Amino acid sequence: MNQALEDIADKKETQIYRLRHSLSHILAAAVRQMRPEAKLAFGPPVENGFYYDFDFGNSPLGEADLEEVERHMNAIVKEHRPFIRKEKPFEEAVHYLEAAGELYKAEYARELIDTGVAYGNTLSFYTCGDFTDMCEGPHLENTGNVPKKCFKLDRISGSYWRGDEKRPMLTRIYGIAFESAQELTEYIAMRKLAMERDHRKLGEELDLFIQDPEVGVGLPLWTPNGTIIRDELEKWARETEFLGGYQRVATPSVTRKELYLRSGHVPYYEDSMYPPMPVDENDHYYLRPMCCPHHHKIYASRLRSYRDLPLRLCEYGDVFRYEKHGSLSGLLRVRAMCMNDAHIYCTPEQVEDEFRAVIAMYQMYYGHLRMGNFRVRLSLHDRSSDKFVDRYDDWEHTEDIVRRVLHNLNVDYEEEKGEAAFYGPKVDIQVKNLMGREETVSTCQLDFVMPERFDLTYVDADGERKRPYILHRAPLSTHERMISFLIEFYGGAFPTWMAPVQVRLIPVNDEVLDYVRNLESKLRSVFFRADIDTSDESFNKKIRNAVTRKIPNIWILGKQEAEQGSITWRRHAVKDQKSFLVADAMALLETLRTNRTMDNFADVAIWQQ
Amino acid sequence: MNQALEDIADKKETQIYRLRHSLSHILAAAVRQMRPEAKLAFGPPVENGFYYDFDFGNSPLGEADLEEVERHMNAIVKEHRPFIRKEKPFEEAVHYLEAAGELYKAEYARELIDTGVAYGNTLSFYTCGDFTDMCEGPHLENTGNVPKKCFKLDRISGSYWRGDEKRPMLTRIYGIAFESAQELTEYIAMRKLAMERDHRKLGEELDLFIQDPEVGVGLPLWTPNGTIIRDELEKWARETEFLGGYQRVATPSVTRKELYLRSGHVPYYEDSMYPPMPVDENDHYYLRPMCCPHHHKIYASRLRSYRDLPLRLCEYGDVFRYEKHGSLSGLLRVRAMCMNDAHIYCTPEQVEDEFRAVIAMYQMYYGHLRMGNFRVRLSLHDRSSDKFVDRYDDWEHTEDIVRRVLHNLNVDYEEEKGEAAFYGPKVDIQVKNLMGREETVSTCQLDFVMPERFDLTYVDADGERKRPYILHRAPLSTHERMISFLIEFYGGAFPTWMAPVQVRLIPVNDEVLDYVRNLESKLRSVFFRADIDTSDESFNKKIRNAVTRKIPNIWILGKQEAEQGSITWRRHAVKDQKSFLVADAMALLETLRTNRTMDNFADVAIWQQ
Repeated sequence: MNQALEDIADKKETQIYRLRHSLSHILAAAVRQMRPEAKLAFGPPVENGFYYDFDFGNSPLGEADLEEVERHMNAIVKEHRPFIRKEKPFEEAVHYLEAAGELYKAEYARELIDTGVAYGNTLSFYTCGDFTDMCEGPHLENTGNVPKKCFKLDRISGSYWRGDEKRPMLTRIYGIAFESAQELTEYIAMRKLAMERDHRKLGEELDLFIQDPEVGVGLPLWTPNGTIIRDELEKWARETEFLGGYQRVATPSVTRKELYLRSGHVPYYEDSMYPPMPVDENDHYYLRPMCCPHHHKIYASRLRSYRDLPLRLCEYGDVFRYEKHGSLSGLLRVRAMCMNDAHIYCTPEQVEDEFRAVIAMYQMYYGHLRMGNFRVRLSLHDRSSDKFVDRYDDWEHTEDIVRRVLHNLNVDYEEEKGEAAFYGPKVDIQVKNLMGREETVSTCQLDFVMPERFDLTYVDADGERKRPYILHRAPLSTHERMISFLIEFYGGAFPTWMAPVQVRLIPVNDEVLDYVRNLESKLRSVFFRADIDTSDESFNKKIRNAVTRKIPNIWILGKQEAEQGSITWRRHAVKDQKSFLVADAMALLETLRTNRTMDNFADVAIWQQ
Repeated sequence: MNQALEDIADKKETQIYRLRHSLSHILAAAVRQMRPEAKLAFGPPVENGFYYDFDFGNSPLGEADLEEVERHMNAIVKEHRPFIRKEKPFEEAVHYLEAAGELYKAEYARELIDTGVAYGNTLSFYTCGDFTDMCEGPHLENTGNVPKKCFKLDRISGSYWRGDEKRPMLTRIYGIAFESAQELTEYIAMRKLAMERDHRKLGEELDLFIQDPEVGVGLPLWTPNGTIIRDELEKWARETEFLGGYQRVATPSVTRKELYLRSGHVPYYEDSMYPPMPVDENDHYYLRPMCCPHHHKIYASRLRSYRDLPLRLCEYGDVFRYEKHGSLSGLLRVRAMCMNDAHIYCTPEQVEDEFRAVIAMYQMYYGHLRMGNFRVRLSLHDRSSDKFVDRYDDWEHTEDIVRRVLHNLNVDYEEEKGEAAFYGPKVDIQVKNLMGREETVSTCQLDFVMPERFDLTYVDADGERKRPYILHRAPLSTHERMISFLIEFYGGAFPTWMAPVQVRLIPVNDEVLDYVRNLESKLRSVFFRADIDTSDESFNKKIRNAVTRKIPNIWILGKQEAEQGSITWRRHAVKDQKSFLVADAMALLETLRTNRTMDNFADVAIWQQ
């Protein structure tokens, strides 16, 4: 048996597979009690649950019927019906299905026989009480084995027989099922949260970005609110990089083809790139899919001495990849992105320290942003594959370096053979989204190949020309990817330092408008993003609007505040409010900004209650 | 006579034309005294002077001979030779030239006759002493009319006869000439300055940017030093725009063709654009040549109320134009640039205030940067041309607005009919470079057409949907263009706030290295760009290197400074130096940064001498 078949066989042996599979039969049996004439199609277990496809003819079941179906299912569970397997010879099986009017099942049975997929000379059937279905199994022994409250019918959708839009449209009923009621409840809560926090939904509600068909799908346009989040991340990166000894560069997003012939991106990477712009027969320009070759050119533009190294060139650089239409998704997978890129050119002696500093920077960023539970994957070469340059000493050496760095920093990691870049080992930072799916946020690569392709050298202390190593790193990923995560992790409630509106001023009545306007000017003059709600809404509606907009700080201003030169401060998602003199409130706001306080987390109290 | 011919006739009547023309004859006469066998080709007056082309056969004159030629020319001037005009019938003229062995002149004479360019039936000759040349004139009356020390031979270059590389290579001797010795001296000094300050030369010396043939000409890569200047300008713009009520956006540099079909950039602007990237038959992507359509899409993405206006969307946006190879020049004319762009969407009632605020912002920027002597051109429509949309009421109305704004702000301006954009009047900001040539740094446009093309509306107080106006503005131009000017205006000596290295620390000896390193950390921890010269050079050489690099502040640190916790401060291009306690020095530095002090100008003293 090959690996794929083995995997399927393994899966079938699991309890959860049997449970979900049995529930699909119980669903069909229940539906038959309500609609005896319904024809059966497929009914498999799937991720998180199961479904069954029915042909209801002219009287299909609808969402409103699901409750009743569930009641029937629960009754069947209580009946403790055994699942009984029975083999029927090919001809008898088909005849049985045809006689029962199960035309979909009969068609499939014939196909299994004709194509030789069914082995032996029988087809298996499972009977459960008065309901029999052609099925390979396996199932629970008895419907009584279904745990209490472990499933829930979820939704109904249309689905073509065999996925072919020329065949009949069937009705698919989906159920969710887990091995315990608790798991089911948790999953439903998580899914609800994930849907509420979906960055596409929040992006629209909070007006963070748009997409436009005339501009093109996968090419988000960042509106003012979203741009603020980008700018704050970028400002943080600039400061962090300045203090880390990086130097910013700014390079064009286009290049002649020659650059990619040298780097090897053409032809190897061409599938992921936009097609070239031919300005004439011999001169083609490309939109860049990454910044590396441009940075290498800056390194190569001067004679470099060992005294100049490490040279750390960084750029929040625009890069463009022509992803397949079907794989595009909100900000997570796009066709134009802005990357927190950098390349560190260093001597072999420096590479370990540099790698360590990079990983420490990742830890600092992710810890601060509360994305601390990232998983680290160390991707290595594989000597048996021809995907990797055949400099095995270099591979061993650089892989040891990365392994040692991760170990010394106490980073948990898993090694994966054959997953390296062709030019060196890499570390992938994996983050789980709210639904538990793992995504790569960023990678950090150690490169001993590009220095040769670009003929990069430095003059060492001994006067010899030597090759530097290159580290490729992008801890904050692309704005697009990072912000899609942050929106979902924070549910759109950003900390004060990142929030599009940092302070909303709400006047209790119009008499204090001068005081409020004055305060707004004061805040804006020191670059706080403050605004006033001057709408005609009621006071309570104004508060609710600020909460809906997830504005971290609401300052309420009435007669008393105007007289005292104070504000009443109400925090997002915090019930209590507190009064401050304006100067004290501004000082506290300044602290939140300067320290980049993560005050969107409940455990970070900015004042004593 | 048509306009072009009239202009030439007018020019010929000027004294400076006669002077330069006569000097070319005097040059030829002088050369003939030294090389009697030299054959004459063309010898016209040109901008700033004159030249003459000679065929020297096997013994050409060289740069080293120019002094002697000049002596001969001065002698001829002193001889007070008259210029005497004489007409010769066609045949006689050609015969005369052929007999004299002047084959180039004879060829040209025959061409004048054959093509009918020479009118009448004679050709004119000018005789000056023993030197006669076929020439249309006019000339000075007498070589004695050449003002004292008003000319200087400049350089020698090769030049093909009739500019045709298949014809003989001639020797061209250039001279510079003005109507007075003072003008000549000033011109030479200005040219020397312009050459020293050429941004391409300084860009290389100060390592501000590079170009690379594999990336492509006209696609500068900004190295760390140049990127700092970009970043500082951008930071200034961000602050200015925040306080001015602008909101930043971030939009992709690519788009589907559909966007430009709507805006009209395709096909009208297509010649200036990179060719499209065809991802399939029906879907073409373009690199954007401007940000406007992307910003209009953001405006259009929400229902806008009159309460939301003016909406000011700004972006330092990457734009791409495929300029002809021959027109590319350093940073001044490139194929990829980053523009200080913004679009202001406002009601008709707001447009005047908005335009005024924009022009005031230009004045603030240019005044602060000491580019105060810009000229303003108001470009208007022309009813007799079909280049402009035919909404004459809108034209009159918007032109009046712009005129009134410029008048009220006391801006000197000149009107130019027929120079508007097709969608509205515009103001061009013209700046003179060091050689006195005027360049457009930036334009500000009032647009009443794009709101229709993009169907932009707002709901007014009366509940009606109305069209906004759009102001297009980019006061700081593109980084490329603006920085090319700044490099040249400042001769590479940037004020402290923009300077790549703000403070260079120079230790007097190695004993104070700890003190110096400590101070560097202190400076860098508050984001000052400080470095230490730890090279093996002598102290004086270190000072000279800092001066060559045009670093605004040098802090010298010896034993005394280390003991006192002080520094000795030396400013770029200032002889005196002064001691400060470290805390005071840092406070002063902070002031320079915060105020964006233009301390690269001699009249801005940062301390009393």
